[in-house]
Amino acid sequence: MKFYDCGPAPSPKRVRMFIAEKGLSIPVVEVDLRSGGQFNEAFRKLNPWCTVPVLELDDGTAISEAIACCRYLEAAYPEPALMGRTAREQGVIAMWEHRCESDGFLAAGEAFRNQTPAFKTRALPGADDFPQIPALVERGKARVQSFFKWLDARLGESAFVAGPEFTVADITAFISIEFAGWLKLKLPDDHTHAKRWYEAVASRPSAKV
Amino acid sequence: MKFYDCGPAPSPKRVRMFIAEKGLSIPVVEVDLRSGGQFNEAFRKLNPWCTVPVLELDDGTAISEAIACCRYLEAAYPEPALMGRTAREQGVIAMWEHRCESDGFLAAGEAFRNQTPAFKTRALPGADDFPQIPALVERGKARVQSFFKWLDARLGESAFVAGPEFTVADITAFISIEFAGWLKLKLPDDHTHAKRWYEAVASRPSAKV
Repeated sequence: MKFYDCGPAPSPKRVRMFIAEKGLSIPVVEVDLRSGGQFNEAFRKLNPWCTVPVLELDDGTAISEAIACCRYLEAAYPEPALMGRTAREQGVIAMWEHRCESDGFLAAGEAFRNQTPAFKTRALPGADDFPQIPALVERGKARVQSFFKWLDARLGESAFVAGPEFTVADITAFISIEFAGWLKLKLPDDHTHAKRWYEAVASRPSAKV
Repeated sequence: MKFYDCGPAPSPKRVRMFIAEKGLSIPVVEVDLRSGGQFNEAFRKLNPWCTVPVLELDDGTAISEAIACCRYLEAAYPEPALMGRTAREQGVIAMWEHRCESDGFLAAGEAFRNQTPAFKTRALPGADDFPQIPALVERGKARVQSFFKWLDARLGESAFVAGPEFTVADITAFISIEFAGWLKLKLPDDHTHAKRWYEAVASRPSAKV
């Protein structure tokens, strides 16, 4: 197995952190997104969406999309469970993970990609070019603030995002907050529950990968 | 268990179709989105995101987000498998499902909600109001056309979206195309592979629920 990664990018870090939590060691192929490495022919053949992360299995199967890479790894390496054991846990964790992706990760991406000059024609990830839409900067930032708010409320009633244990939902939430930092958006000081949780997650070895 | 549904809406139909493919019968609570039923106090308590679908389990647990409802049902009722058996299958299916959601379902939603007068202040689903951004109508429609194109290419090499068997990825793709129909966008006639697949899926009893 190989893991196609890009050190500075938020999306592959979701999987890198998941790999670290599983205690796995997977050979890494670094894709330089800044020089357009995701658009070269060999990589495009592996993943026509021209995105990282990608897991390439030993039989040549390529799995892209962060949550799908995690799903593969969870099934192949069940311990420690990061996506739930019972049906109820699996559903609840998938719900919180999806909420974090929609309200946190995609919102930060919306603001960042529509704001940053280097993404002038690359306002969405993927193979197709789309021009920036300036109104999405403000909307994305507002959505991130709303994400911060509900995350704080949730962490006032739960040790981790999806329940009493650390799961993939914590990874998506944590990386979303790191990504929001690129926009100079930080958890407000009065979001004490989210800040307590954030410090705890940041101190895990997996957060430093 | 109860299933909070809304007959005309695309998102809960993803789960309704999944339930039908599993051969399950789950009592339905209809939420009238057109009169704002998702914002009343009782429903907001069940799902503060004010969206359908929601599965309410017998212990009171509420699971929202279409893919999370499917995940619960897949784990609780494994047959027939719609999200893969082996780790490889599970990863590949999750990848295609997520691509269909991003490029198909969210793209159609982006165009539809930013275009339709009734959604003037409701350009995103969820509890928060966001004003329409007219530029997203054109972008959403372009993304749907791109989705049609890759779907056709994919179905030229595979019987179903994620491989040789019908899976949750076919449901998300199918509902995305139905949703795109609200925008008067249809699979072009020369997309013969996608059209063959679409007719086959449309003829399944689950497509008519």
